[in-house]
Amino acid sequence: MHKKTNKKIFVLGGDLRQLAGAAALQKKGFQTVIYGFKKENCEGFPVSVNPEKDISEADCLLLPLPVTYDNVNINTPMNDEKIPLNLVYDNIKRNTVVFGGIINEEIRKCCISEEIYDYAKDEEFLIKNAMITAEGAFDIIFSETPISVFDSDFLITGYGRIGKAVAKAAAAFGARVAVAARKSSDLAWIELNGYKPVKYKNLENEIGKYDIIVNTVPCRIFDKKIIKNIDKSAFFIDLASVPGGCDMKDMQSMGIKAVHALSLPGKVAPFSSGKIISDTITNMTDKD
Amino acid sequence: MHKKTNKKIFVLGGDLRQLAGAAALQKKGFQTVIYGFKKENCEGFPVSVNPEKDISEADCLLLPLPVTYDNVNINTPMNDEKIPLNLVYDNIKRNTVVFGGIINEEIRKCCISEEIYDYAKDEEFLIKNAMITAEGAFDIIFSETPISVFDSDFLITGYGRIGKAVAKAAAAFGARVAVAARKSSDLAWIELNGYKPVKYKNLENEIGKYDIIVNTVPCRIFDKKIIKNIDKSAFFIDLASVPGGCDMKDMQSMGIKAVHALSLPGKVAPFSSGKIISDTITNMTDKD
Amino acid sequence: MHKKTNKKIFVLGGDLRQLAGAAALQKKGFQTVIYGFKKENCEGFPVSVNPEKDISEADCLLLPLPVTYDNVNINTPMNDEKIPLNLVYDNIKRNTVVFGGIINEEIRKCCISEEIYDYAKDEEFLIKNAMITAEGAFDIIFSETPISVFDSDFLITGYGRIGKAVAKAAAAFGARVAVAARKSSDLAWIELNGYKPVKYKNLENEIGKYDIIVNTVPCRIFDKKIIKNIDKSAFFIDLASVPGGCDMKDMQSMGIKAVHALSLPGKVAPFSSGKIISDTITNMTDKD
Amino acid sequence: MHKKTNKKIFVLGGDLRQLAGAAALQKKGFQTVIYGFKKENCEGFPVSVNPEKDISEADCLLLPLPVTYDNVNINTPMNDEKIPLNLVYDNIKRNTVVFGGIINEEIRKCCISEEIYDYAKDEEFLIKNAMITAEGAFDIIFSETPISVFDSDFLITGYGRIGKAVAKAAAAFGARVAVAARKSSDLAWIELNGYKPVKYKNLENEIGKYDIIVNTVPCRIFDKKIIKNIDKSAFFIDLASVPGGCDMKDMQSMGIKAVHALSLPGKVAPFSSGKIISDTITNMTDKD
Repeated sequence: MHKKTNKKIFVLGGDLRQLAGAAALQKKGFQTVIYGFKKENCEGFPVSVNPEKDISEADCLLLPLPVTYDNVNINTPMNDEKIPLNLVYDNIKRNTVVFGGIINEEIRKCCISEEIYDYAKDEEFLIKNAMITAEGAFDIIFSETPISVFDSDFLITGYGRIGKAVAKAAAAFGARVAVAARKSSDLAWIELNGYKPVKYKNLENEIGKYDIIVNTVPCRIFDKKIIKNIDKSAFFIDLASVPGGCDMKDMQSMGIKAVHALSLPGKVAPFSSGKIISDTITNMTDKD
Repeated sequence: MHKKTNKKIFVLGGDLRQLAGAAALQKKGFQTVIYGFKKENCEGFPVSVNPEKDISEADCLLLPLPVTYDNVNINTPMNDEKIPLNLVYDNIKRNTVVFGGIINEEIRKCCISEEIYDYAKDEEFLIKNAMITAEGAFDIIFSETPISVFDSDFLITGYGRIGKAVAKAAAAFGARVAVAARKSSDLAWIELNGYKPVKYKNLENEIGKYDIIVNTVPCRIFDKKIIKNIDKSAFFIDLASVPGGCDMKDMQSMGIKAVHALSLPGKVAPFSSGKIISDTITNMTDKD
Repeated sequence: MHKKTNKKIFVLGGDLRQLAGAAALQKKGFQTVIYGFKKENCEGFPVSVNPEKDISEADCLLLPLPVTYDNVNINTPMNDEKIPLNLVYDNIKRNTVVFGGIINEEIRKCCISEEIYDYAKDEEFLIKNAMITAEGAFDIIFSETPISVFDSDFLITGYGRIGKAVAKAAAAFGARVAVAARKSSDLAWIELNGYKPVKYKNLENEIGKYDIIVNTVPCRIFDKKIIKNIDKSAFFIDLASVPGGCDMKDMQSMGIKAVHALSLPGKVAPFSSGKIISDTITNMTDKD
Repeated sequence: MHKKTNKKIFVLGGDLRQLAGAAALQKKGFQTVIYGFKKENCEGFPVSVNPEKDISEADCLLLPLPVTYDNVNINTPMNDEKIPLNLVYDNIKRNTVVFGGIINEEIRKCCISEEIYDYAKDEEFLIKNAMITAEGAFDIIFSETPISVFDSDFLITGYGRIGKAVAKAAAAFGARVAVAARKSSDLAWIELNGYKPVKYKNLENEIGKYDIIVNTVPCRIFDKKIIKNIDKSAFFIDLASVPGGCDMKDMQSMGIKAVHALSLPGKVAPFSSGKIISDTITNMTDKD
């Protein structure tokens, strides 16, 4: 697709990274129209004054990540008013190519477009996003803790994309890195990559020695018994999507400094995150 | 020395890391008295009310890094009033062991102590400090740039302790790392460690392609001709001590976002930095 | 299982690593009897003189990797005479625990044991085996090429366990490492890990610049068109199981030095390979 | 220099890597004449039939590494007869550029050439040579030990160029790497790079747990007390130049498998080693 210029793309809602994505698409030769952002952020873009018409005439539509939180309105954190999903459903044409992050069944049912791509399912997008998420995690760690990552005892729970990215950076900064995982094959790779493998069943006994704890697993690994044993001066950061790996209230009641950090890529590096979205959607339609 | 407890140590001036150092020394069994800090930061420490007497009775004296900026007063950024170096010179005894960061000839001349150690010359201290400085650099980079280190073109000038630490972390985050250096042996190691080696004479032509530039060399590498070629959206961070690697006014007049970051360890990780000072001074007197 | 000592284990056939496995099992407290090896290798072990009886009385039976090549005889490369699988089928009891490497349906059908474990399917075993396979590959590369891995252009096809292990070592030796893979997620990780990603469709054009080529993919990636473009002074090593990634005759007819290397772990490090088998079978029965 | 073609270079003595160097120099446009090699290795080169005349007419002379062992004859391991250094001294002209590996005072005194370069003192040459030496070390380790580097306890003594190269590769293969060094700054870097730092004074107590021991320090670190404690199944490889880090007889009398490996680059990778010599001598005369 990236070879065909002059295509019209309508960028609707989302955070700073959608705007950065819009800018990257402009550079690739798309006619980019945006809608659903604060005026002060729109410099350099044609803003739609007639979204119904512009949607109906667009070759492509770029929706945010996630597209929606409630299946009623589009996720537009930078807009003052709510924009209903119906704006899309009512105006889009069959041959418009739709891109969105996390597209559920409801959206697929309501949207008549014959080509709907979920860029948040693209493995390459997810890997790159994980790398930037790791940067966001260290940004928070550096700001929130009076200790260095260097010479710290650093625990990561989960060895998926984000766990791998965080572990690599923590080791580069000179931490003693441990990674907890369930699968024995993960534990084997953890060891081979030079980290200390930790079994979940040993977390309760081991947790007390860690200075910095990063959770990446979206389920309640950190129950009260484990939280009770965390060192009071430790720092806990939860990168897992809602509901996260612990109840933040349990952390607070134990006096442990804890942060549940979400949507880090859009915060720490909106430009690069937007570029990744732009690259992903041009790749998705360009596979051979 | 660390085996002999009950020694009295007088901690005089400096930033948060000296307080953290004081805490670490307390843990090791020293009787620690502090002086030259804001009241609100002194919790947990006996504060000297008679510094003349306490200095004269101390077994050890811990001075900040740097000890002084003007050879008149002690460096006490956390104190409201100035504290003259004479306070030390007039009260210290011959057999008091003095530790300070950057001890110049003037200090050595005026201080009658027979054992004066400059912890800022200790190679191990410098290496550990460089690691924490790298964390401070990334803290700033994450906050100040809308792009990710991942997938960026990342240039470091200088391949000493700090250059090595920054390069390793940048590579771990997924940057394409280049390092400029003068010595051919450094350039060989740079290549072997997987970075792109850059000769200084090629900086002027090459500089334009870098997104993030970190200087670690304390001399004017970045002259106007080089600065002119830096990309306008690039970010420049200077970690070299005063006067740094460029004239910040040249950067500004060219519209390049630039930061001269100093004393990062005390800012990003005061606790760990203090612990390193504490470890260094106990090691320095404990060599066999 | 490893806590229960005094169990009788019968070790039947295989190469040096089975003997090393037998030794490791002895150390763990097993009563180990061996059969199917040359006399000169049996020192330190009780050799079975009545295998029918010993099999029938064994608590466990350890078969080689692979158990058999022809479904008729056991794989006994170190024995002068053939030993039929029927020896096992006719004498084994229901409650004997059987361990073997690659256990096919035929074996499962004929063997009445109720507990049959295939250690060659254990993920941890496979990862560790891949690490040792990489060592075997470099052993051959060092011996067979007059060039160094350092400063070479080094291509690996496939990014599974063995591909990862080979890539990491080649990079550590200072090669410029490229890895060819099919999946876009693999290509993304390849890039993130600092290697050059190569798409298979580009192999034909790119192949000419590589000095050392290591195949790990067990299918015919290297067709005549690709082989034609390999540099005549390059070295090709095929680590994939039969039939491997190319027809060795095509390599020869093009004058390219090529080796199909099989069963490397047992050759380069029989002791460690045996220890891995021993660890795997004790782990397999000890999962909780 | 590498831009001036048609220069005559006389390559005199040495091992396979000098021949490879000669080939590399031919490729760069030099008129290369060789002397002091076995006939069967000379294919592709003009062999001097009148060395007196050819030396006197050469623009450059390439001598081996080392140039000589006895200050009488040139080091010509591939020649049947001895070739005296006087052949060079008697025929060389003042303006002939001489390159040799390890050029002592005696040679400088006798050789009237006004430009004499010792390529074995070039830092870049030494680093690259160290990388290839590491490959040679692993070649021997893979052949001589029945255990894998993976999962081994691997000790390196000395953290210079070769120590660093060996440590990096051992870690990549999955060993638990420890490095012994004297300087505290080296010990700090060893730890930061993820290896276990070991002080020499602790060697005697610690040595017993290592499976593979690689010495790189050219002085007698391994005395009888230390050797006595080495595990009987360990493997010791000495990479240090004569006299090496131990008395090999002490190793033998203790029953420890030990190898003193010298001149590895010329053995494991003569082509690349020759190319490095060729690159070094063209760089040496081309500095700006």
